[in-house]
Amino acid sequence: MPLPVPVLPEGVDPAWLPPAAFRAVGGRRTLIRGSGPLVETVHGEVAEACRRFGGRVVRDASDDGPYDLVLGLGADGLGDEGFTLAREGGTTTVTASGGRGLLYGLFHVGRLGEAAFTGERSRRTHRPALALRMLDHWDNVAVHPVMGQVERGYAGGSLFWEDGRARGDLERVRAYGRLLAACGINAISVNNVNVHATEARLLTDRIGDVAAIAGALRPYGIRTHLSVSFAAPLLLGGLPTADPLDGAVRAWWAEATRRVYEAIPDFGGYVVKADSEGQPGPFAYGRSHADGANLLAAALEPFGGTVHWRAFVYDHRQDWRDRTTDRARAAYDHFVPLDGRFAPNAVLQVKHGPMDFQVREPVSPLIGAMPRTRLAVELQVTQEYTGQQRHVCWLGPMWSDVLGFPIEPGASVGESARGGLVAVSNAGDDPFWTGHPLAQANLYTFGRLAWRPDADPGAVLDEWIELTYGPGPAAGLHAVLDGSWRTYEKYTAPLGVGFMVQPGHHYGPSVDGYEYSPWGTYHFADRDGVGVDRSVATGSGYAGQYGKPWAEVYESADSCPDELLLFFHHVSYAHRLTSGKTVIQHIYDTHFEGVEEVEAARDVWAGLVDLVDPARHRRVAELFEEQLRSAREWRDQINSYFFRKSGVPDAHGRRIY
Amino acid sequence: MPLPVPVLPEGVDPAWLPPAAFRAVGGRRTLIRGSGPLVETVHGEVAEACRRFGGRVVRDASDDGPYDLVLGLGADGLGDEGFTLAREGGTTTVTASGGRGLLYGLFHVGRLGEAAFTGERSRRTHRPALALRMLDHWDNVAVHPVMGQVERGYAGGSLFWEDGRARGDLERVRAYGRLLAACGINAISVNNVNVHATEARLLTDRIGDVAAIAGALRPYGIRTHLSVSFAAPLLLGGLPTADPLDGAVRAWWAEATRRVYEAIPDFGGYVVKADSEGQPGPFAYGRSHADGANLLAAALEPFGGTVHWRAFVYDHRQDWRDRTTDRARAAYDHFVPLDGRFAPNAVLQVKHGPMDFQVREPVSPLIGAMPRTRLAVELQVTQEYTGQQRHVCWLGPMWSDVLGFPIEPGASVGESARGGLVAVSNAGDDPFWTGHPLAQANLYTFGRLAWRPDADPGAVLDEWIELTYGPGPAAGLHAVLDGSWRTYEKYTAPLGVGFMVQPGHHYGPSVDGYEYSPWGTYHFADRDGVGVDRSVATGSGYAGQYGKPWAEVYESADSCPDELLLFFHHVSYAHRLTSGKTVIQHIYDTHFEGVEEVEAARDVWAGLVDLVDPARHRRVAELFEEQLRSAREWRDQINSYFFRKSGVPDAHGRRIY
Repeated sequence: MPLPVPVLPEGVDPAWLPPAAFRAVGGRRTLIRGSGPLVETVHGEVAEACRRFGGRVVRDASDDGPYDLVLGLGADGLGDEGFTLAREGGTTTVTASGGRGLLYGLFHVGRLGEAAFTGERSRRTHRPALALRMLDHWDNVAVHPVMGQVERGYAGGSLFWEDGRARGDLERVRAYGRLLAACGINAISVNNVNVHATEARLLTDRIGDVAAIAGALRPYGIRTHLSVSFAAPLLLGGLPTADPLDGAVRAWWAEATRRVYEAIPDFGGYVVKADSEGQPGPFAYGRSHADGANLLAAALEPFGGTVHWRAFVYDHRQDWRDRTTDRARAAYDHFVPLDGRFAPNAVLQVKHGPMDFQVREPVSPLIGAMPRTRLAVELQVTQEYTGQQRHVCWLGPMWSDVLGFPIEPGASVGESARGGLVAVSNAGDDPFWTGHPLAQANLYTFGRLAWRPDADPGAVLDEWIELTYGPGPAAGLHAVLDGSWRTYEKYTAPLGVGFMVQPGHHYGPSVDGYEYSPWGTYHFADRDGVGVDRSVATGSGYAGQYGKPWAEVYESADSCPDELLLFFHHVSYAHRLTSGKTVIQHIYDTHFEGVEEVEAARDVWAGLVDLVDPARHRRVAELFEEQLRSAREWRDQINSYFFRKSGVPDAHGRRIY
Repeated sequence: MPLPVPVLPEGVDPAWLPPAAFRAVGGRRTLIRGSGPLVETVHGEVAEACRRFGGRVVRDASDDGPYDLVLGLGADGLGDEGFTLAREGGTTTVTASGGRGLLYGLFHVGRLGEAAFTGERSRRTHRPALALRMLDHWDNVAVHPVMGQVERGYAGGSLFWEDGRARGDLERVRAYGRLLAACGINAISVNNVNVHATEARLLTDRIGDVAAIAGALRPYGIRTHLSVSFAAPLLLGGLPTADPLDGAVRAWWAEATRRVYEAIPDFGGYVVKADSEGQPGPFAYGRSHADGANLLAAALEPFGGTVHWRAFVYDHRQDWRDRTTDRARAAYDHFVPLDGRFAPNAVLQVKHGPMDFQVREPVSPLIGAMPRTRLAVELQVTQEYTGQQRHVCWLGPMWSDVLGFPIEPGASVGESARGGLVAVSNAGDDPFWTGHPLAQANLYTFGRLAWRPDADPGAVLDEWIELTYGPGPAAGLHAVLDGSWRTYEKYTAPLGVGFMVQPGHHYGPSVDGYEYSPWGTYHFADRDGVGVDRSVATGSGYAGQYGKPWAEVYESADSCPDELLLFFHHVSYAHRLTSGKTVIQHIYDTHFEGVEEVEAARDVWAGLVDLVDPARHRRVAELFEEQLRSAREWRDQINSYFFRKSGVPDAHGRRIY
């Protein structure tokens, strides 16, 4: 039976799958061959498109058509997710070895649009570069008193959880799965890595809730994962310990995991944040993180599951007076000694930078330093530090820079990420999915870069624009989004120094907000200069964690790239950047420019009023007002702070308070 | 029937009413004369003391004794609260016109102890200087998601409210009332001035909860007041407006108030925070605060009630870039034009300083500027900005300075406070009542200063020590407490500048925490100097709100007292104080001294281990560790901040980070 296409609730934005996305397919004659659940998904999609646009679809026919499109299982050797596409003699043919490949092939045809049905195409094989393309949802089942339902969520409540349990009506979860499949995502973790009391029980007596979600996502090729508490044997099992080397603990995890697979046969595995920011972990028992990860890996191994073990381990009770500790060093210092000790089905999940998703960080040196460990790289699609989905900040260029960075000799980050690419989701039950309608572009871009890390992000952006908005406003949208990350960087913390944000919620400026905190996030600004000395020669030694050539490049303020200067060095305000400007004048200039660029983007958006759906246009226009207010606040606080400290006037005499 | 003395739950500290407080009375022969509920309270007290200490008590006997103590109603002209005390021929006699006076007389005898029963005493009359001596509890009925149950409470949950309603067992409320009566407090407002949805209903369908509390407090001479929402006619009455000049609104308040008095015949009246920090008020209808206050005054007038209208009105959405607005000016600017327009039973409740209970502020100029208005002065016993009952900070000297300040020619603040003295309570359901056992001294001192504003605070302190701890540790306790406010001032924000605290919760240092906020609390530190210019000549003009001689004294940095210098002036770090020190060296010196003084106080406390009850000693010793940690954090943040800004090294080469 063809699977019906999910019906969006009234008022919910279709994002990059409006009906028009399948106009070209829907007007044609399609033959589908093969069997299996995902073939039914493909059939349902084509049938719905034909219903709208007048084409027709035939299943497993023995005749030769004529057909405009043939979608079929059959080819070997493409893996579960690959497909081939060819066009010959007026017929476009997609062939796959497995159902997921066929679905991805269909979405590929959708992206091509009319171009899929013109001319000839020689056979080409498409395969994802990374086998795991995963979203981590930081969703709580119960609303958390401080963090709300979705931790670092800026798009309403959870798509999965409502009133303390899985949503009864999972139609929107199905629609979400469909959107994710259309950009290539194939795994989801459905709850927050900070596992609170209610959420801990998802592993055991509430696994049925997870199974329901898994059931809704499965037809879109998405496997479901779960964040678990390392202390589960204590919390849920009544054991006196959670020691990973304890026999009873191992038995408890084995049995708990067996029951999980009983409920969800294709369950993906566990995600664990251990010994981090208050979460329990193996340190309590004098065990290593490899011991901890391998405990869960052993429980998952018989069923083909994977444990994602986060490398975000650092001392969050640091003393700002102690300059010998450097949080940036922590992940490397903790994990590199463990290389080779993780089980094959344990994936070490590493944030792309050494700190925490700032607008600008160097690539984490851990990524190139564990050749005998499967690493996954974690990005943050939710805009915690990049405007919280009230600011336009399309992160494609940043992620592309990260993924293309040659962290090892001969290997980019994208290539080192053998465990996959993971991102913290930015979606919720907001009508636009992502709060800011243009933040959809981040979700889409993440999926497409996970499929192909070396894709041109600008081309991905244009693809998203074309699917979501059609050709009318494309040039304007491209102008608004393409440079928005660099614009955001300009009006916020300068030159890689990071963390000049309001404590706790992280929205808006507070230059000294974390300067005397226990969080290890300092800038050391004084009347003479600013920045963190992380050199080997005179600083924390963090620069020495890199291989060649980066250790040398970052070691000296002369060779360090401007945009990371204050991350690696404490320099005087008079220090000259490669650009020829002094640091202080760079700060002033970028902050004035950043606000001007927001004003310009707002004006471009205003000009699109007749080319964009009114609801979308209105929401974005409203948010631009907030972005502009906030950008001015950033500009004025940062400039005032550094003017008060340095005493250096702006070379152009602009207003600083 | 004599009223039984309340029984403290196991483990609850007896504070300043341990059994020994009535040892002298309890061992003697006492005659009680008169009738009425408070006479029964007196009788119960004496009977309980006699039960413990072997004396006896007789009621309304016609014989002549002999009696050691005669407590009797009878004298005229002492008012409801006054009493006379005399001793002649071996008999001590307390005479009062009303029950409260008799109860206060008994507590006075208790404070005198054995001295009440030796030698002769000529008749002396005791009367409170202020008719209203009130505590405002900022207690919520329902636990507030951010503020907890007691807003700015540091002593556990509410004494009055539990699980969303009045406590069923009011024995501890009775014990609280007894403690308050023993230091002279005669009124309580039982809920937060920020009136949330649940608490708004106390006025109407939940008045029974308030009546129960009033019933428990009445035998101790304490009248109960209620904080109400100005929007009550909308919220509770279903009216379309809360306009104070609207007839239906006036009728609604009249009827609501009538019902309140039906439930609580001696109800004290309403407390209102209007048009302040988000609370509703008359501004919404284009009416004045006199219109607002008089609306409620009119409803209360037939029943003898009073409305306390808070003068804490300012713009809390200020722009830090706008130097023309000065929050310190706000109360004066709002209210002085209304002088003479408030009803006789409306009391304008004015915080003692122009800002918000900082460790050092000038006296509010509003206090001397409204001769035709009944003003009450508001203090904050709860230590929001003075260590949150984790630090020892006895506020007696500060309050005494405030109350004795000659704000008007010929009138001190204590004399101008014709509407009474009010304080935000620091008590909760903590076993020690106030979290920090030594914070009890603040509650006691407040009551005694409200009775007699010109009392020597050191003598009040010794009185509290003697009652609470007995003579053994008295010298040590005096040493620990007497200078503790100045010690706290030394290690926190310097020279009156205020508000260098962590935003939101207000515990611990954050020099720039409010510097770029909308709250109007700035210090304007730059690399050259620090402080707020509030002069008439070059600043906000706030200094001009004072009468003579203060306007002139504060106008010039040369005549402004050192301790308020940065409140009134922006000066360079090299500015020389009256003390001869530069501002920057003063900052360094006081911060090192402050920590040393905490260390010394901790050591004194440690030496009292054999002289103090173990539970009290342990709690205080633990808290001293936190105070010391926090004081060092304050010292190091403040010193580092100003060293980084000024570049001036410490003259003594001490460690600054």
